[in-house]
Amino acid sequence: MLNKQVLMASRPVGAPKLSDFRLVQTELPDLKEGEVLLEVVYLSVDPYMRGRMSEGKSYAAPMQVGDVMVGGTIGRVLRSHDPNFSYGDYAEAFVGWQQYGIVPGKQLRKLDPQAGPLSAALSVMGMPGLTAYFGLLDICKPMRGETVVVSGAAGAVGSIVGQIARLKGCNVVGIAGSDDKVKWLTSELGFDSAYNYKTSPNHYEKLKDLCSKGIDCYFDNVGGAITDAVFGLLNPNARIAICGQISQYNNTEAELGPRNLSQILVKTATVRGFLVMQYLDQAREALIEMGGWLREGKLKYRETFVDGLENAPAAFLGLLRGDNTGKMLVRVSPER
Amino acid sequence: MLNKQVLMASRPVGAPKLSDFRLVQTELPDLKEGEVLLEVVYLSVDPYMRGRMSEGKSYAAPMQVGDVMVGGTIGRVLRSHDPNFSYGDYAEAFVGWQQYGIVPGKQLRKLDPQAGPLSAALSVMGMPGLTAYFGLLDICKPMRGETVVVSGAAGAVGSIVGQIARLKGCNVVGIAGSDDKVKWLTSELGFDSAYNYKTSPNHYEKLKDLCSKGIDCYFDNVGGAITDAVFGLLNPNARIAICGQISQYNNTEAELGPRNLSQILVKTATVRGFLVMQYLDQAREALIEMGGWLREGKLKYRETFVDGLENAPAAFLGLLRGDNTGKMLVRVSPER
Repeated sequence: MLNKQVLMASRPVGAPKLSDFRLVQTELPDLKEGEVLLEVVYLSVDPYMRGRMSEGKSYAAPMQVGDVMVGGTIGRVLRSHDPNFSYGDYAEAFVGWQQYGIVPGKQLRKLDPQAGPLSAALSVMGMPGLTAYFGLLDICKPMRGETVVVSGAAGAVGSIVGQIARLKGCNVVGIAGSDDKVKWLTSELGFDSAYNYKTSPNHYEKLKDLCSKGIDCYFDNVGGAITDAVFGLLNPNARIAICGQISQYNNTEAELGPRNLSQILVKTATVRGFLVMQYLDQAREALIEMGGWLREGKLKYRETFVDGLENAPAAFLGLLRGDNTGKMLVRVSPER
Repeated sequence: MLNKQVLMASRPVGAPKLSDFRLVQTELPDLKEGEVLLEVVYLSVDPYMRGRMSEGKSYAAPMQVGDVMVGGTIGRVLRSHDPNFSYGDYAEAFVGWQQYGIVPGKQLRKLDPQAGPLSAALSVMGMPGLTAYFGLLDICKPMRGETVVVSGAAGAVGSIVGQIARLKGCNVVGIAGSDDKVKWLTSELGFDSAYNYKTSPNHYEKLKDLCSKGIDCYFDNVGGAITDAVFGLLNPNARIAICGQISQYNNTEAELGPRNLSQILVKTATVRGFLVMQYLDQAREALIEMGGWLREGKLKYRETFVDGLENAPAAFLGLLRGDNTGKMLVRVSPER
């Protein structure tokens, strides 16, 4: 049986190009004891993948040229050598950018298609939602009446962060990359205010205006000049969660910016980098709470779909440019 | 009765100059109910004073031109309108750069001259010692076998940080500004290693060499290029206490440096600015523990004395240049 896969064809220098990826066909190996054959339905493309394409030490080993691109997926079981899974079951797995994946059954999370849209397991009810939940609640620890700023606010993570902060009674300010996104944040998601960083390049003045009481919490997805401006407006004991630094991922050497540790010192602020993996043991409780908010209409989400595995590289490049609103997903095969 | 005082004569631009200070004589006011007249014996000069001389928001209001320079002191009671203090008592108070100070008795901490050298109340058994203790133990939380790097390691705070980290079983690496200081750290204070940042400007290679297992804790007194190098060598879940940024205090605008938040992200590191004031309610217990270590010879300290109030500006400028080993103190009048 033939499998389509997207490989890393070359290590990107700066912004990835379509030529850094290659679509290939390979023969699927036989299923071993305990393994499950999944047909991928949805593939998640995420900013962290840019980091995996680079050489150099990080929390995960870098991919090598010729490797199948990594990624979270939702798939349908075609064959199973694990008694817990049968034909037609849906499950989440880390299969990567391919049409089919063979995975040990114990690495699958079974999904109930009746419980809600399947794709949500890769967005609000999956990794991005949990990232938002734990980064905000465990690191920023927002308190009622505080001001919470979110960069990358219209992305899969940022859009959830802002809504949870609203649920906690905070003044929520979002930063996003288009007027449409800004409108979505304020008119549909309930952000108190938001602005388009592309048309308002003076972040300090803009944020000073929107955060008249200063900034208590900052959930950072982007880094760079936006983050510099936030550091100048921190309140005493501010908490900053570093979730992503998408503005920096394509740099070929460290970008220079104003040194900000003096701000951290005089504001006795805390800056913490985190990964959602650190919280996996608490994921179940978090998903129960998030599911409740979803059913009550307190949490909304949006997904941007791109069709076809062959378009996954374009979807990923679009994600890095900010083409998506909410979660960026590739529809590899139709739901049945 | 006449009092000598050192005023801020002008707000420094860049590095403070002697002309930014002025020695004046003023008439002491009368003592009010509850107040105590202190003759200053020791005056502490500290890096934070550079921040107080600048305009701009910080944790404390900036000084104004014409103000008496602020500072911690040890003094001898000459007259008292507070029943808790009598002639000849020694006490710590925040009197500033002057010969005499009038302070409400309740703002004094009485000192027992039999308990140990009086000056220690401004160094190891005072603010710098507590800063080291809480910054290291509460923020860095070093664990046995971990590698702890201290910048400004031969200063009043850094020298104590390194020794406490040794007591906790850590591999301690100090960074200091002269070969003599380096020798003091390794041969007398028990640091595992140390280097002279002035003669080893490639901090990354030097630290990589001295920290073969990476850096788990960093106690930062200096900022700048040294701190940049540390960020490149952090281990997962590293903890960084921002205590001072002395390399940045004389900047007239924010210095540029490589953006380091991506390092904080991939290493899931925590960076926290802190002030010793945050821990005042726990100071008593800390001083008891530190006093024990001192008596047992597990904690050593050094003080650099400059004689005469009129030389306080020179002492302060020397401190900013790193002339001191251990605590920099001005001897305003002799102990009796």
